[in-house]
Amino acid sequence: MNLVLLTPSEIDAQGNVVLVDRRHEHLTSVLRVDPGQTVRIGVIDGPRGTATVEQVNGERIELRCTLETETPPRPAVDLLLALPRPKVLRRLWAQLAALGVDRIVLTNAARVERHYFDTHVLSPSCYEPLLLEGLQQARDTRVPRVSIHRRFRVLVEDELDALCPGGLRVAAHPSANGSIAPALTARPASRVVLAVGPEGGWTGFELDLLAAHGFGRISAGPRTLRTDTAVIALLALAHEVLRAPNREP
Amino acid sequence: MNLVLLTPSEIDAQGNVVLVDRRHEHLTSVLRVDPGQTVRIGVIDGPRGTATVEQVNGERIELRCTLETETPPRPAVDLLLALPRPKVLRRLWAQLAALGVDRIVLTNAARVERHYFDTHVLSPSCYEPLLLEGLQQARDTRVPRVSIHRRFRVLVEDELDALCPGGLRVAAHPSANGSIAPALTARPASRVVLAVGPEGGWTGFELDLLAAHGFGRISAGPRTLRTDTAVIALLALAHEVLRAPNREP
Repeated sequence: MNLVLLTPSEIDAQGNVVLVDRRHEHLTSVLRVDPGQTVRIGVIDGPRGTATVEQVNGERIELRCTLETETPPRPAVDLLLALPRPKVLRRLWAQLAALGVDRIVLTNAARVERHYFDTHVLSPSCYEPLLLEGLQQARDTRVPRVSIHRRFRVLVEDELDALCPGGLRVAAHPSANGSIAPALTARPASRVVLAVGPEGGWTGFELDLLAAHGFGRISAGPRTLRTDTAVIALLALAHEVLRAPNREP
Repeated sequence: MNLVLLTPSEIDAQGNVVLVDRRHEHLTSVLRVDPGQTVRIGVIDGPRGTATVEQVNGERIELRCTLETETPPRPAVDLLLALPRPKVLRRLWAQLAALGVDRIVLTNAARVERHYFDTHVLSPSCYEPLLLEGLQQARDTRVPRVSIHRRFRVLVEDELDALCPGGLRVAAHPSANGSIAPALTARPASRVVLAVGPEGGWTGFELDLLAAHGFGRISAGPRTLRTDTAVIALLALAHEVLRAPNREP
């Protein structure tokens, strides 16, 4: 936990917060803070800041917060992801939030098994704490916005433009040749919408539908990766090319 | 399993192989192959090829192999990794092999806990099957070479030049500014040696020792990532910049 996330309502008018939960435990057992020390904090979907430890004991910790004036911008990458196996998705939530994703758009696809939709891993009570864990790791406050779509075609044809307007759209497919960098050079944009298929890949119909809606085809390289590895690799590459100072020739 | 790996001794002089183990199960239950079909195969640390299914039943499958003449080159990236928690390392083995690493050099560091060295996750009987799983995913035959080092200083001062000769050396550190791409532009090389520290980071002494032995400092971006996420992100970035056609100006 490189930053302690707080809800806006936890901070009183004087900037004071009392923590009694896992965050208290983390600050006392892992960081072993003493009165007078400062820790990094952030308000969920609000500004970051620092807090001074006022009082601490075995049950509670009192912090006095000083917040920055600006809220960090939302990450410049959206992820359209064919719903992975529950076990894989469970591991991905925190990593997606840490890497930086604005919208996580989970979708059905021909090679997604139906029962994947029945898992508790898709319930906010499961994934919200994992998203916060990832944000606290990466020192961000912007919670990814999650939506779940059972009809791929309806999503791509009718909903996606509103969910993810603008930006470079790319669909990952193992047999594709190009990578994200040349795609962004060819079509400069300040955001990327990255589509990653199911373990067995997108079908021809799905690739065609994505292409018809502006998704160029890219790969994470010549090696075929597991979905979870590929998603992390591609998000890292997307952020890297968006950051590159001279990517627009 | 996108490629079935075989040991050289499994193939007889006529190119025939009989499989009775998990590979038989995978070919019959997952890929549901029939006689006459071809499957992708590879010889461990040898060439790739294809095999025709000659006979198949509930107990055994007979393949006739045709191998390519060339063995794929070893990956152009070595990883120097401070030993992570056993649970994290267990998840990483297959992903490292899939992403492509020549040498996996695991090392002690000030912020590595001693008991991490006692785990069975460091025994070849645990990690070799996981490395093969990753290679079969990525269609590679080159098994990463693993070595384990309990003395960081001895490793960096006396052993590393022989283990990882040449190549661009970079050490990942969250507070560093640059990424791999400009480092490789500044010092063109055909290989990369990537050093990734423990969860708590390298110490000043360790960073200085790495710097004295040619490691430039880079990061995977402004967000602090968990070790396993960072390793995947950085390996993807390293391979991407090594592949880029015009990386040497």
